Amino acid sequence: MRSSPIRHTSEVMMRYELYYWPGIQGRGEFVRLALEEAGADYVDVARRPNGVAAMMKFMENLRAARPPFAPPFLKAGKLVIAQTANILLWLGPRLRLAPREEAGRMWAHQLQLTITDFVAEIHDTHHPVASALYYEEQRSEAKRYTGEFWTHRVPKFLGYFERVLARSGGNYVLGRRLTCVDLSLFQVVEGLRYAFPRHMKRFERKIPRLIALHDRVAKRPRVAAYLGSERRIPFNESGIFRHYKELDA
Amino acid sequence: MRSSPIRHTSEVMMRYELYYWPGIQGRGEFVRLALEEAGADYVDVARRPNGVAAMMKFMENLRAARPPFAPPFLKAGKLVIAQTANILLWLGPRLRLAPREEAGRMWAHQLQLTITDFVAEIHDTHHPVASALYYEEQRSEAKRYTGEFWTHRVPKFLGYFERVLARSGGNYVLGRRLTCVDLSLFQVVEGLRYAFPRHMKRFERKIPRLIALHDRVAKRPRVAAYLGSERRIPFNESGIFRHYKELDA
Repeated sequence: MRSSPIRHTSEVMMRYELYYWPGIQGRGEFVRLALEEAGADYVDVARRPNGVAAMMKFMENLRAARPPFAPPFLKAGKLVIAQTANILLWLGPRLRLAPREEAGRMWAHQLQLTITDFVAEIHDTHHPVASALYYEEQRSEAKRYTGEFWTHRVPKFLGYFERVLARSGGNYVLGRRLTCVDLSLFQVVEGLRYAFPRHMKRFERKIPRLIALHDRVAKRPRVAAYLGSERRIPFNESGIFRHYKELDA
Repeated sequence: MRSSPIRHTSEVMMRYELYYWPGIQGRGEFVRLALEEAGADYVDVARRPNGVAAMMKFMENLRAARPPFAPPFLKAGKLVIAQTANILLWLGPRLRLAPREEAGRMWAHQLQLTITDFVAEIHDTHHPVASALYYEEQRSEAKRYTGEFWTHRVPKFLGYFERVLARSGGNYVLGRRLTCVDLSLFQVVEGLRYAFPRHMKRFERKIPRLIALHDRVAKRPRVAAYLGSERRIPFNESGIFRHYKELDA
């Protein structure tokens, strides 16, 4: 991917600091995948000793002029950027994971924001009433939400990305070059397989291009190395993609 | 606001086409407010005769390489941009409703995306289970969702924007100049007042800066003219902000 040694050097010299909850993949994972694929130098701050305290201190700093609303946020030199899609909008060109021209970058960001919307709905399959309540306190609502989710929303969102892929003119969503959008769609497929293995088994034949994209991303050497490393936090029932048997009936 | 006659001319010469559902303010309203405040030349396409058919045709065009997932979308020359925050990211500098430097634009976009998140939750107060179902089919879930919404989410979101305003160093969220973020926060306050008049009456004393911002935006000559015109669609029970008495108990 890299043709310019200068760009390579500047990437190596810039150490990014990612702030996100240490026990889950969550929304931070979309940023981690981009950093990993690019071979960027980054620190996953909250996973270090006393890291969560450092993150909270950062967020609650009353003197900060531009405080993040919530993790994830990225520190790059003096810049602090929050909101997953916004972080990727900024990182994309720097990590060579976005088109260079404005129209292409806008299109990539538009798709990333549609993924953001979908991820929020995925989260709501197990938390349709409130994040502040336990899943067990909203189980019946979750069941009803998840039914509608698989009837209407998954076909709508994944069908859309399947159509976009069909028209992209290449192996990736933006064409011939990998972008953050591909990495994020990989994560969505991976997460849905974890959370809803039975549903996905039936649904995947409707999205052959997305599944092929998922497999292509998984085989990229840096992604594969990352997925096999301890840096990849396993899916679990505290994250966005949660496996509850009764929701996958 | 305008110091350059050249910019003025180019604005007048560029006719924007906004595509959004004609019967509601919805997410399109955040774009309309920006276009109106800037005095931009725009057509609200779907509100013209056969406009919805034109919008649907556009969305279902199988040959479009970059189809929007959903309205609103904006046509600017050959460019088609979807996702509300993405539209405002692009329009902002062109309408002089965003900072010029990158860090400021990223910060404005970050706030806009946080407003997007909040607006999705506001929508879910009346549709916590599924958009495909009527409100009447999810009334009990809506009641429970709305309770949590006012206990946890409104204080968290509006408290955040209140803090950001306190540190902005000016009358507006980004400082001394009005941006899209201010217009959107005006709309959020206006909408919450419509949907939840009783809740808002009690809550507003906790967000004096946001209320002052709302009033300041409402008095801007172009905004005031717009709000008094037929172009401003009244709030109703098909939009994002809906008034259901039982949810405002």
